[in-house]
Amino acid sequence: MYEDLREAVYQANLQLVEAKLVVLTWGNASGVDRQAGVMAIKPSGMDYRTMTADDIPVLSLETGEVIYGNRRPSSDTPTHRVLYNAMPSIGGVVHTHSPYGTSFAQARHAIPCYGTTHADNFHGPIPFTRDLTEEEIGSEYELNTGKVIVETFDEMWIDPLHVPGVLVGGHAPFTWGKDTASAVENAIVLEFSAMMACQSLSINPQTRPIPQSLLDKHFFRKHGPSAYYGQRK
Amino acid sequence: MYEDLREAVYQANLQLVEAKLVVLTWGNASGVDRQAGVMAIKPSGMDYRTMTADDIPVLSLETGEVIYGNRRPSSDTPTHRVLYNAMPSIGGVVHTHSPYGTSFAQARHAIPCYGTTHADNFHGPIPFTRDLTEEEIGSEYELNTGKVIVETFDEMWIDPLHVPGVLVGGHAPFTWGKDTASAVENAIVLEFSAMMACQSLSINPQTRPIPQSLLDKHFFRKHGPSAYYGQRK
Amino acid sequence: MYEDLREAVYQANLQLVEAKLVVLTWGNASGVDRQAGVMAIKPSGMDYRTMTADDIPVLSLETGEVIYGNRRPSSDTPTHRVLYNAMPSIGGVVHTHSPYGTSFAQARHAIPCYGTTHADNFHGPIPFTRDLTEEEIGSEYELNTGKVIVETFDEMWIDPLHVPGVLVGGHAPFTWGKDTASAVENAIVLEFSAMMACQSLSINPQTRPIPQSLLDKHFFRKHGPSAYYGQRK
Amino acid sequence: MYEDLREAVYQANLQLVEAKLVVLTWGNASGVDRQAGVMAIKPSGMDYRTMTADDIPVLSLETGEVIYGNRRPSSDTPTHRVLYNAMPSIGGVVHTHSPYGTSFAQARHAIPCYGTTHADNFHGPIPFTRDLTEEEIGSEYELNTGKVIVETFDEMWIDPLHVPGVLVGGHAPFTWGKDTASAVENAIVLEFSAMMACQSLSINPQTRPIPQSLLDKHFFRKHGPSAYYGQRK
Repeated sequence: MYEDLREAVYQANLQLVEAKLVVLTWGNASGVDRQAGVMAIKPSGMDYRTMTADDIPVLSLETGEVIYGNRRPSSDTPTHRVLYNAMPSIGGVVHTHSPYGTSFAQARHAIPCYGTTHADNFHGPIPFTRDLTEEEIGSEYELNTGKVIVETFDEMWIDPLHVPGVLVGGHAPFTWGKDTASAVENAIVLEFSAMMACQSLSINPQTRPIPQSLLDKHFFRKHGPSAYYGQRK
Repeated sequence: MYEDLREAVYQANLQLVEAKLVVLTWGNASGVDRQAGVMAIKPSGMDYRTMTADDIPVLSLETGEVIYGNRRPSSDTPTHRVLYNAMPSIGGVVHTHSPYGTSFAQARHAIPCYGTTHADNFHGPIPFTRDLTEEEIGSEYELNTGKVIVETFDEMWIDPLHVPGVLVGGHAPFTWGKDTASAVENAIVLEFSAMMACQSLSINPQTRPIPQSLLDKHFFRKHGPSAYYGQRK
Repeated sequence: MYEDLREAVYQANLQLVEAKLVVLTWGNASGVDRQAGVMAIKPSGMDYRTMTADDIPVLSLETGEVIYGNRRPSSDTPTHRVLYNAMPSIGGVVHTHSPYGTSFAQARHAIPCYGTTHADNFHGPIPFTRDLTEEEIGSEYELNTGKVIVETFDEMWIDPLHVPGVLVGGHAPFTWGKDTASAVENAIVLEFSAMMACQSLSINPQTRPIPQSLLDKHFFRKHGPSAYYGQRK
Repeated sequence: MYEDLREAVYQANLQLVEAKLVVLTWGNASGVDRQAGVMAIKPSGMDYRTMTADDIPVLSLETGEVIYGNRRPSSDTPTHRVLYNAMPSIGGVVHTHSPYGTSFAQARHAIPCYGTTHADNFHGPIPFTRDLTEEEIGSEYELNTGKVIVETFDEMWIDPLHVPGVLVGGHAPFTWGKDTASAVENAIVLEFSAMMACQSLSINPQTRPIPQSLLDKHFFRKHGPSAYYGQRK
């Protein structure tokens, strides 16, 4: 039952550890099967070293109910589910407390696009959400975290696959992609771009974003119909 | 004799090395057996690579005398003992010179709660102690280090299990927890939170702590009767 | 066919990973055979862990056409080719997004020569290029990246083997050397010097470059006819 | 011939790599046999991975002539020899380009004693030397580097075993100790203290050194007749 999906989600969670994006149990990756109407996600608070693909629970996208597995899903599951339901083009979501991305989230500062490393995967600055209200925190907190992400992208008219990540203010980054593996890659790029943005600002507080033409060039040489990066498939 | 206690303390000391919180021999973990009235702690100045569980000395909580083992206990033992005697709810203590925690201790700057990573384990800023006086340093220095920690928590009316750590001014962090393993986890979270606080301040010197409602939400979703993080036990 | 060249280029690409200068697939090393009029370079977007020497394509220096191998060459190939054709003394080129070098490139700030570590391999500050124009980005971008590097060195009258590297503004570093292995070494030194320049500026914003006499001493004790560093060959 | 000395020096050089204090071939450790009037040191520019104890040359302390081995000694040998001849209490010398120590050397900024980590091994700030003159660089540069270190300690009336290290301005740190192993330990502590001093200044630019009483306490609980740290020998 959903073996491929659970295996992909399991592997993605291990890759987050290997890429040093998670410490302790902070972080989770999920994936979706749109046809079956289900998502799979890391179990809550489990040690990455003892977890197996069998521990990955599967839930209904519509109701959020667990329909496969004995483990309690990540406490961040409602956030992932809101994203899948509001962004039909995405196939995977990743949440980490990766250090530089989280530092920008804590500083409530977007990650500006200072170079081509960032532009290869994110077509513009990575935005941060407004703070949640006391009411939004008090009830259905994780669900409201998802809603405030969706609100941010709706208000700024950004295509989620063009800027596949966000900083939740005072909390940490979420990334996504066309599948779980892409969401992991975007989590790596977000962290690396955040680290270099922080260092660039330290070297030169007047550092400016790259011009639009360079941003377009790098993003579209890897994404969309004119892409020419990588091997022919 | 006290085999489980010594083994737990031995493992905790190895975990500090694995988590890269100690360099050379700077750091020690201890644990307590309240019923037996004893504590076990790392031996002084021993190499973590050659130490075995058999090298862990056991002492009387009341008198401080070694009652098991041939090794001299850590020179920081009196600090640990003061904490166990003044804080009846704790079961383990950890001392490290982890780099960012120590940098905040040197800067005599509390670690503000800038995000949910910090809030998951510490219900508020991690305070620093006042400097010891010349008299306190000159006689029974390690004992007085413990006393100034207890004084800090008494004056601020903080429950030690709600803010399970402190920065000793000009020195380094101490953490604790309900057992030795929790004290190690709190040492990891303290260091990670300190690193991100330093980076957040570098990105935005006006970074503000998260609101009380978010602090409460994250701490109490992991601790206390309403916790819902992790697997059911 | 060109087995030694492909093997050297393959090894150089692995060394970039080992030296932690590349993340994901960002980075490439190439080498040249001047007599045969060919260059070899990393294939585009391939995982360093699965790549073998057989995947390294060989191209004509003059026309840029692939004359050996089935893989599409790195998208940065035109940049490398311009450098080989304009700088007849170089035998290898390396491109990375190494974090501190890239941060200086993003900050559009030369790496000043603050110490002997830098002076051992670079006889002066490592310059950055002007930004490419919209036209240069819009058409033959990678070729124009090479041209703006050559322009930088022509205008400043710098011998490319005396300052074997550059920062492309808003992008990342390129280094080179008498062969591919030297280009890799220079990429390592550039990154290490950039990291220490950033830290030196953080400690003392008034840090000044070392005097010319010390710069000369260190560079020429390792390079040129009066060198006395290392073992007699 | 001098087998123990060469083995100790060989091991010390490997420990510098293991402690991540050297990159490429930047760094060297040496040791002395006072009775025999000889010193042993790393060979110049050799890869640490292929070097064996047999490659360690032995020289006369008085004349500097190689009296054992086929390898050319480190180009920094004259600096080490000046230190051994001017500081009769030291038994080992280490030179590295460790990143934070070197950054302070480049910034021409002493490493202040901001905490007990530093105070455990260095009884006060780690000073930096004045810049060498053009004449001192032009002729017998490495010998003059040693002389300017000795000058620094003579002028400040510091016992070299109380502050077992120095920053050579615009260059990098040298450390020493009662034997080669202690010199390596002091190189590790210097780098770690430099890193935390840099971070402390970043967190609080007004960070002040610890008081004299705390400095004395920590240094003398590990060194001299009243030491009580570690196991009884």
